[in-house]
Amino acid sequence: PPPPVRPEAEVPRMAAFLDNLKWDNNGLVVAIAQHADTGEVLMQAFADRAAVNETLQTGLATFYSRSRKGRWCKGETSGHYIKVLSVYLDCDRDSLIYLAEPIGPACHTNAPTCYFKQADASSGELRTAGEHSSRAHAPMTTLFALERTIAQRRAEAEAGSSTGGKPSWTAKLLANPELLCKKVREEAGELCQTLEANEGQERAASEAADLIYHAMVLLNAQGVSLEEVSKVLRSRFGTSGIEEKAARPPKA
Amino acid sequence: PPPPVRPEAEVPRMAAFLDNLKWDNNGLVVAIAQHADTGEVLMQAFADRAAVNETLQTGLATFYSRSRKGRWCKGETSGHYIKVLSVYLDCDRDSLIYLAEPIGPACHTNAPTCYFKQADASSGELRTAGEHSSRAHAPMTTLFALERTIAQRRAEAEAGSSTGGKPSWTAKLLANPELLCKKVREEAGELCQTLEANEGQERAASEAADLIYHAMVLLNAQGVSLEEVSKVLRSRFGTSGIEEKAARPPKA
Ligand SMILES: [Zn+2]
Ligand SMILES: [Zn+2]
Ligand SMILES: [Zn+2]
Ligand SMILES: [Zn+2]
Ligand SMILES: [Zn+2]
Ligand SMILES: [Zn+2]
Ligand SMILES: [Zn+2]
Ligand SMILES: [Zn+2]
Ligand SMILES: [Zn+2]
Repeated sequence: PPPPVRPEAEVPRMAAFLDNLKWDNNGLVVAIAQHADTGEVLMQAFADRAAVNETLQTGLATFYSRSRKGRWCKGETSGHYIKVLSVYLDCDRDSLIYLAEPIGPACHTNAPTCYFKQADASSGELRTAGEHSSRAHAPMTTLFALERTIAQRRAEAEAGSSTGGKPSWTAKLLANPELLCKKVREEAGELCQTLEANEGQERAASEAADLIYHAMVLLNAQGVSLEEVSKVLRSRFGTSGIEEKAARPPKA
Repeated sequence: PPPPVRPEAEVPRMAAFLDNLKWDNNGLVVAIAQHADTGEVLMQAFADRAAVNETLQTGLATFYSRSRKGRWCKGETSGHYIKVLSVYLDCDRDSLIYLAEPIGPACHTNAPTCYFKQADASSGELRTAGEHSSRAHAPMTTLFALERTIAQRRAEAEAGSSTGGKPSWTAKLLANPELLCKKVREEAGELCQTLEANEGQERAASEAADLIYHAMVLLNAQGVSLEEVSKVLRSRFGTSGIEEKAARPPKA
């Protein structure tokens, strides 16, 4: 992890952007750090003008601590920096998103994100991941939640605790690599057929869902995460508002 | 869109959860509404105890407006409600995520999300989507950013303005459905081979990236979005902390 570079002062070209922000009575805006690959909201804090300026110049998420009354670069003590790829502003200019790549866990508890507690609306209870490193109760978007479900089915099968004794379809696929590969090829063919036979959008979405699910089971069988696949895609197609990247051969 | 149901009062089982929250000097916490399928941060506002209570009871994102000094259910005038599937809390209990399914655009400008302005760190300029309905400068996570890139390649090819006269690989695939289907089947086979021939995790991630990219081009060719595919997967596998769902036949 690179040591943060403290900017000496605001560079003039940043002034226009910073002048645009609508600071609250304490001179702050909300700053939300979001994982560029998984979409996870990593943490939320506040930022003053100097913190936003530092984030834009160093590419490391920087905030203003209301309790300690000072600017802090996330990771400056733990080494768990949050590398910011681009900064976004909301319609009324008082809230920022730092779209980012975290280096290590984002939370001081060592959880991957700060949002590891879920409110149970029926019981009123707070459900927390058993271990902080677990994502059991973190807000996952659909594809990553599916990945978590597949991992749970695998764990259940390995513990011999499948629901009602009958192994899940996921467990059957994981136990039978030949069947799994047969299904991935078959679903790819069915997806192609929706185009070839002009079967319509609903069938295409359904077959794409089949293919993605089976491909994700195949990735689980090899211990590969969707985050790693996303990183490959980002390295091939991604552009960043902050890092000026050397021109790559066009891949898309 | 359902009319919001105003809860008469806090139900007792919610008190424990609400007591847990760390309200600021104005009795507020930060509330971030995030799209459950795409991961987009839709909007950020503040919530008081009554607003969080109402969100948990109605399943519709509700906030406290600091300027109007009152509780408001997002969508109560526009009809553009945000259906909340689950609520998450951060480590120091002063920030919530409403993981949600928006009904219509989240922003009052009719943009899909409020974060449609991007800071350009090299020029200091603010880049805004040409039209509010566009997601050109919204914070997209990798897979959805790739979908946007594919759509841009298609638009460039249709406008005859491909870079340097040479059509992109994406444009070639879109112009040749036979080639596109051949590639999707081939990449599915190559992904399977990483398991069959034990080629290792790096190859598996790379082939999965190939397959996902080509499948996404095939979806673009049919006008199907990754969001629609995600919705299919959520309807098959998803569970919600707020909606009590009827038991479904197990699919995973
Ligand atoms: Zn550490
Ligand atoms: Zn705002
Ligand atoms: Zn934390
Ligand atoms: Zn199928
Ligand atoms: Zn409307
Ligand atoms: Zn907090
Ligand atoms: Zn807005
Ligand atoms: Zn190939
Ligand atoms: Zn390949």
